[in-house]
Amino acid sequence: MFSGILAELERNLKKLPGVGNKTAQRLAMFMVSMEKKEALDIASAIEEAVNTYQNCTVCNMLTDKEVCEFCSDTNRDDKQLCLVQNTQDVYLIEQTHEYKGKYFVLNNLLSPLDGIGPEGINFSSLQRVVEHREVEELILALNPSAEGESTINFIGSRLANKVHNVTRLSTGLPFGGDIEYTSSLTLSNALRRRYSVKE
Amino acid sequence: MFSGILAELERNLKKLPGVGNKTAQRLAMFMVSMEKKEALDIASAIEEAVNTYQNCTVCNMLTDKEVCEFCSDTNRDDKQLCLVQNTQDVYLIEQTHEYKGKYFVLNNLLSPLDGIGPEGINFSSLQRVVEHREVEELILALNPSAEGESTINFIGSRLANKVHNVTRLSTGLPFGGDIEYTSSLTLSNALRRRYSVKE
Repeated sequence: MFSGILAELERNLKKLPGVGNKTAQRLAMFMVSMEKKEALDIASAIEEAVNTYQNCTVCNMLTDKEVCEFCSDTNRDDKQLCLVQNTQDVYLIEQTHEYKGKYFVLNNLLSPLDGIGPEGINFSSLQRVVEHREVEELILALNPSAEGESTINFIGSRLANKVHNVTRLSTGLPFGGDIEYTSSLTLSNALRRRYSVKE
Repeated sequence: MFSGILAELERNLKKLPGVGNKTAQRLAMFMVSMEKKEALDIASAIEEAVNTYQNCTVCNMLTDKEVCEFCSDTNRDDKQLCLVQNTQDVYLIEQTHEYKGKYFVLNNLLSPLDGIGPEGINFSSLQRVVEHREVEELILALNPSAEGESTINFIGSRLANKVHNVTRLSTGLPFGGDIEYTSSLTLSNALRRRYSVKE
């Protein structure tokens, strides 16, 4: 729709997740219409964040320090390690206030078809962390998708002899979900994993 | 959720339309995760667009020139003037390929409660354009909302003696709409404005 510099902005905005043609146009137009200083502040906030954030040298999560706030927090249990796919997942788990151990970010799931093998998921550095800290529980907090399952199987079998307890997140019906709209895979799993109402 | 520089980026992104907490977090995290150069390109595209775009000195639309491409296009009919609320609307009307006249952007609708009077909608500069070009048709392409209606009434009555033909966009049922879900205001208007199926 636009041409020149505005088209260039539109093209750039479309790199973002969930931003298609219409949204990119609307955002571009909004930015050139808004208070100039306000819009320039957005640009410099992006620049500053991008130039500051890097992967934690221990757990790979994105952080503005060399070692992230979680890895360097001595109040967190060193013996529990929660594996997540990306940094965002760390914050989502933090919001539950259910977990007080440490994290490790894989940044990928195994996907041989896309050429993502053990090195793509930082497996050898994971192994070092597990051995060095003598981790007692490894929580594989990964998506129950095809890639997630094979990553869970891979890590579970490779580290079984190093970690006493390897666990994964519970699978079943989501709260607020409706059996009628649940896939038969989820439902049969939920049946198999049924538990006493007294639990 | 975030702190420091990432929180600052999140706060900045929330200025954008349709971007709430969750989206701002997702976008911020995506930007610091993506290829660094790609993310910095977004920031500089914003900067360049914001620093380049300004209001056309004739019609007020946002443009990278002093006088916009529409005002300076001699192939467009000078005697037709289409009034729109903002620059985006110009592009939406252009996409219909139905209109070959010129545009004028109000940048606002009349809203006395918000302190927006005739000067807030560039009325005197509109008057100058209308007189200078001896406009024959003025199309008030404004929303049929409370503010839109009062702006239509105001401009319609003030310029009635200067322009032969003052028109507004048709109102009625939208194509693909459903009578069942149409407001009674729209439906009564559609009944009143009914037209012969042969038209």
